[in-house]
Amino acid sequence: MKALLIIGDGMADRPSKEFGGKTPLETADKPAMNHMANMGICGIMDPIAPGIQPGSDTATLALLGYNAFKVYSGRGALEALGSGMNVSDGDVGFRCNFATVNENLKVLDRRAGRIDDAEASKLAESLKKVELSSSSMEFTFKNTVQHRAALVLHGSKLSSAVSSSDPGVDGEKVSVIKPLDDSPEAKFTANILNELTQKFYEVLKKHPVNVERVKRGLPPANIVLFRGAGTIPKLKPLNEAYGIKASCIAAVPLIRGVCKVAGMQLLDVKGATGTLQTDYMAKAKAAVQALKMGDLALLHVKAPDVASHDGNFKQKIEVIEKIDHMLAYILNKIDLSETYVALTSDHTTSCTTRSHEGDPVPVAIMGPYVRRDDVEEFGERTCAKGGLLRIRGKDLMHILMNLIGRAKKFGF
Amino acid sequence: MKALLIIGDGMADRPSKEFGGKTPLETADKPAMNHMANMGICGIMDPIAPGIQPGSDTATLALLGYNAFKVYSGRGALEALGSGMNVSDGDVGFRCNFATVNENLKVLDRRAGRIDDAEASKLAESLKKVELSSSSMEFTFKNTVQHRAALVLHGSKLSSAVSSSDPGVDGEKVSVIKPLDDSPEAKFTANILNELTQKFYEVLKKHPVNVERVKRGLPPANIVLFRGAGTIPKLKPLNEAYGIKASCIAAVPLIRGVCKVAGMQLLDVKGATGTLQTDYMAKAKAAVQALKMGDLALLHVKAPDVASHDGNFKQKIEVIEKIDHMLAYILNKIDLSETYVALTSDHTTSCTTRSHEGDPVPVAIMGPYVRRDDVEEFGERTCAKGGLLRIRGKDLMHILMNLIGRAKKFGF
Repeated sequence: MKALLIIGDGMADRPSKEFGGKTPLETADKPAMNHMANMGICGIMDPIAPGIQPGSDTATLALLGYNAFKVYSGRGALEALGSGMNVSDGDVGFRCNFATVNENLKVLDRRAGRIDDAEASKLAESLKKVELSSSSMEFTFKNTVQHRAALVLHGSKLSSAVSSSDPGVDGEKVSVIKPLDDSPEAKFTANILNELTQKFYEVLKKHPVNVERVKRGLPPANIVLFRGAGTIPKLKPLNEAYGIKASCIAAVPLIRGVCKVAGMQLLDVKGATGTLQTDYMAKAKAAVQALKMGDLALLHVKAPDVASHDGNFKQKIEVIEKIDHMLAYILNKIDLSETYVALTSDHTTSCTTRSHEGDPVPVAIMGPYVRRDDVEEFGERTCAKGGLLRIRGKDLMHILMNLIGRAKKFGF
Repeated sequence: MKALLIIGDGMADRPSKEFGGKTPLETADKPAMNHMANMGICGIMDPIAPGIQPGSDTATLALLGYNAFKVYSGRGALEALGSGMNVSDGDVGFRCNFATVNENLKVLDRRAGRIDDAEASKLAESLKKVELSSSSMEFTFKNTVQHRAALVLHGSKLSSAVSSSDPGVDGEKVSVIKPLDDSPEAKFTANILNELTQKFYEVLKKHPVNVERVKRGLPPANIVLFRGAGTIPKLKPLNEAYGIKASCIAAVPLIRGVCKVAGMQLLDVKGATGTLQTDYMAKAKAAVQALKMGDLALLHVKAPDVASHDGNFKQKIEVIEKIDHMLAYILNKIDLSETYVALTSDHTTSCTTRSHEGDPVPVAIMGPYVRRDDVEEFGERTCAKGGLLRIRGKDLMHILMNLIGRAKKFGF
């Protein structure tokens, strides 16, 4: 028996007054999702707990069966890991932005005009040569997509208890990074980061790429902002916990990082971008393939969250319908007599508030021996009438492992 | 966005054989409550956990979002705080009764004939002058309503691990207070209380008020019984946790105490008494006003619990109908486009057993973006079919804060 977990990032929503009091899921044409609801068992799920607004990182940890309140240790290391960087125990990772500052270090553009990958790569290459005053540690810096980058501090005397240098909004000065507790490690780490901020700035402000950008009227990417300090969460990987081979089909570094620490194989899918223009069918094919090779596949699609953060209800419907086509393809290609398929969302993202919300998400599980209920449509409210009732995100993986016969008995 | 939480104390009930197998809520005429159920999302809620019989103190802590199992530290300090007394960290508070004893300290009436407030005040005034043998601490004593009073021991070497002097029933001797652990603090506190019992008795037994009462054939209030030792619970107030301004409309000292430690402003409403004769409309008006001034208002009505403890099913129906009128007024006066209203009960109180029960309570939440379900009537069984399904008391505040946009994201 095998399991496929399909996650539409931020796919759940609140009812919209402008759209007849319905949610995007309730409005979209989604025959495959409805088929799953009809043939399966449905419910609603609090990714973390009722009313708690999850991040995609904490929610994905939960969907993989972990207690996020216990294991979550910040974003940075997960993002770095998901970007293909090495992060070991003791290392501290950071999410970074190339940004534009004036000579007083006031941030003019937190995304440096969304600088393109090629230019960012050239800048990152130069930053690798920066030397730190301390010889007891090293750093790795890597640009990912556009202005986005990640930093890892490698060493044994580091702490993630440090503040961010990113003021969060344009028009404010770059923040001095401060230790958040009294440990010498936090103080040391803050000092290193402030040193890196300064030394990166020295390299970037006169870098030929930036000189060229200014000539073309573009904002120079003359500083790097650090935030989301995090370490590797301590958890038992799925392969150890259940003796399974699991793989992850996701483009977003943060999700890939979570799956990596959970012991999943990260698949590279050409055309999977984590954007609205991602190649849904390429992901579908990868999922079908992954199920042939292993026991569990996680298929994550970022697009509904992107549409939600843009407040674009209609685009969210379109994205949901594309996911539905993807799902139809998968359901046609896999062996349903030996596969359980779960469909859900990692959190509600409201097109109205444009942010993650703590409302529960719908979930449907289809497979040979589920207790099929009488829900016929996949949606936030229809699924609330299903046989799963209301579960927690961290329950889902246990439920799936139970269904595929991989759960371990507790007691005799 | 704002939130109003309306709590009918002990409003939920069990079905009654004498009333066609229905509960008071199911029997009452309650158009406003039904309107809330119809327009909102409904569910049932275990105030603490399934089957656990909550006190009003633990249940209210839960409804404010706290884990009562972790934070509850006894009743006394909450009751004293809610009575307007000062209680600091380290202090121990007690609920007290003026009672009647004979010369052998056998309790003849635990409520001293429900002595009136004026007489109790005179007695309390005299007790303030009692001097303790220890100079390392002080006490404050205050009468509240009728025979009820509160005591606070102020000091740094006190403990709430002490037994009660109240035998709980008439006809038994006043209990000697004992330390409940081996700490010197518990021993010291027990000694102080036994000393206070004796010294209070010396003052009260010859007090003119009591001499006069005996002449009139009334039981003298010649002793003070101590129970419910408690300290201030350690918790993060709502204003800090969510950055909100919250206020409490409640007459019962215990509820006011809980709201006070949660950082809520306690409103004084003329005519709000915590009895069956409370001024419902005065409370309604105060709630409407409170919502104009802040982000969250809690409106607590004690009356349904009083009727339940009296085993008076018909009176409970009348009280529920009065609450319904109150609710109708509120719903007409507030701006429903920017307010979420939650209606629930802090626990089930059975008119049959006349005590708090661990059965779940109904809950309805109405507001701009709730996922309205198809429940059309507010009641213990109708709400069980609603979209909230079954939640815990401590989830409710998180759900409300999420809806009004005050929840903090967990993760990225």
